Amino acid sequence: MRYEELTIEGRNAVLEAFRSGKTIDKLFVLDGCHDGPVQTITREARKRDTIITFVNKERLDQMSATGKHQGVIAYAAAYEYAEVEDILKAAREKGEPPFIFLLDGIEDPHNLGAIIRTANLAGAHGVIIPKRRAVGLTASVAKTSAGALNYTPVAKVTNLAATMEALKKEGLWFVCADMGGESMYRLNLTGPIGLVIGNEGEGVGKLVKETCDMVASIPMKGDIDSLNASVAAGVLAYEIVRQRLQAGGK
Amino acid sequence: MRYEELTIEGRNAVLEAFRSGKTIDKLFVLDGCHDGPVQTITREARKRDTIITFVNKERLDQMSATGKHQGVIAYAAAYEYAEVEDILKAAREKGEPPFIFLLDGIEDPHNLGAIIRTANLAGAHGVIIPKRRAVGLTASVAKTSAGALNYTPVAKVTNLAATMEALKKEGLWFVCADMGGESMYRLNLTGPIGLVIGNEGEGVGKLVKETCDMVASIPMKGDIDSLNASVAAGVLAYEIVRQRLQAGGK
Repeated sequence: MRYEELTIEGRNAVLEAFRSGKTIDKLFVLDGCHDGPVQTITREARKRDTIITFVNKERLDQMSATGKHQGVIAYAAAYEYAEVEDILKAAREKGEPPFIFLLDGIEDPHNLGAIIRTANLAGAHGVIIPKRRAVGLTASVAKTSAGALNYTPVAKVTNLAATMEALKKEGLWFVCADMGGESMYRLNLTGPIGLVIGNEGEGVGKLVKETCDMVASIPMKGDIDSLNASVAAGVLAYEIVRQRLQAGGK
Repeated sequence: MRYEELTIEGRNAVLEAFRSGKTIDKLFVLDGCHDGPVQTITREARKRDTIITFVNKERLDQMSATGKHQGVIAYAAAYEYAEVEDILKAAREKGEPPFIFLLDGIEDPHNLGAIIRTANLAGAHGVIIPKRRAVGLTASVAKTSAGALNYTPVAKVTNLAATMEALKKEGLWFVCADMGGESMYRLNLTGPIGLVIGNEGEGVGKLVKETCDMVASIPMKGDIDSLNASVAAGVLAYEIVRQRLQAGGK
């Protein structure tokens, strides 16, 4: 396992982490603290599109393991993130049409871990997540993925819709899950495909939804609104698996 | 009948509890929190003469079992376990062949909640859990079920295999998920059916598995062993939904 969760505390350590090229998921800075070293750190963070959150001293003290945060705490990626190109390459190497999961703002680490696990077993070539408003590859995610993080590449992008546009040029079609859509059983989900799963509470964002080629709905017979995000991802992924197997005559 | 005290936490779960007509004894709301969802909840509470108490964050955190109260906690009168007969009756009243989930030792409250949610949306008539070595209807389960606990009856039995034998006399067939089984796409899963989901680590117990009529496998293309239990339940349940829709010509 390549995994280790990293909380980096203190000005030198955080600055060093940025300069060494380490992927920092989130930076927490003491609100109202604007001296030179802190400004250097926030400048580095902005260069890399790292999300910066300004918090009060109590919050920072609570987060601190060492008690010596000096006003800055960074959360580093537990795993190395892949590039989108690595995912396409994995598909090419297997001689399969690309099958990619795109997660539009999954916030619960248990859901993210379970979805990466599902992506692995459904034969998807990778998972793409956005930088903002989403959980990264934390210890909980690694644990819930049951080892799938070691095999299934996860890429992190600044703009999900822009990444989808680029992937369309590679021949991919995109389907997202939403209640207003056509029944998933009636859609053709074979071929190079990106499966878009929305945020737990709000579903798929407007721009991302507009970028999708198809909107699929899972038949709902019950009294409540929606499935758990990781269950919905599993149900849709396996409808894709079923159609691919059928198309392959297996 | 057995009763268990219940604390309902989180905005969706609390609102859903009110709307389903459940008796809420007390509602605790974060003092100073006046946003839309919270106002909707307090309005529902006033309609029903529920006592509302405004408390500070420390107090609410202390009361919270899940740590995710989102500013609202409700104390419900109790959750009521159903009887197996209630589940069969629900199917009869809908004029549908029974579709029941049987959980052989689910231990994680998030999984149990997500599975009850899936059971509701897949149109199952109820869920049966064993008394021993399994999580019951706790606050975490209620929250993760996103309100489904208010609609989908859950029965608790002493001996799952004995209950299955009794249900066979009512015409039910049982299918469990296991890696050695036939691909779920090739099995006939229409008709009165019990879907058996095993424990997160150990799968389905020996006796329960022997009592099943069919063993179904979910096609696995990846590198790791198994799907998350709630995802596996969702994938299998929706294969049953697909076959039922197809058989019904829809």
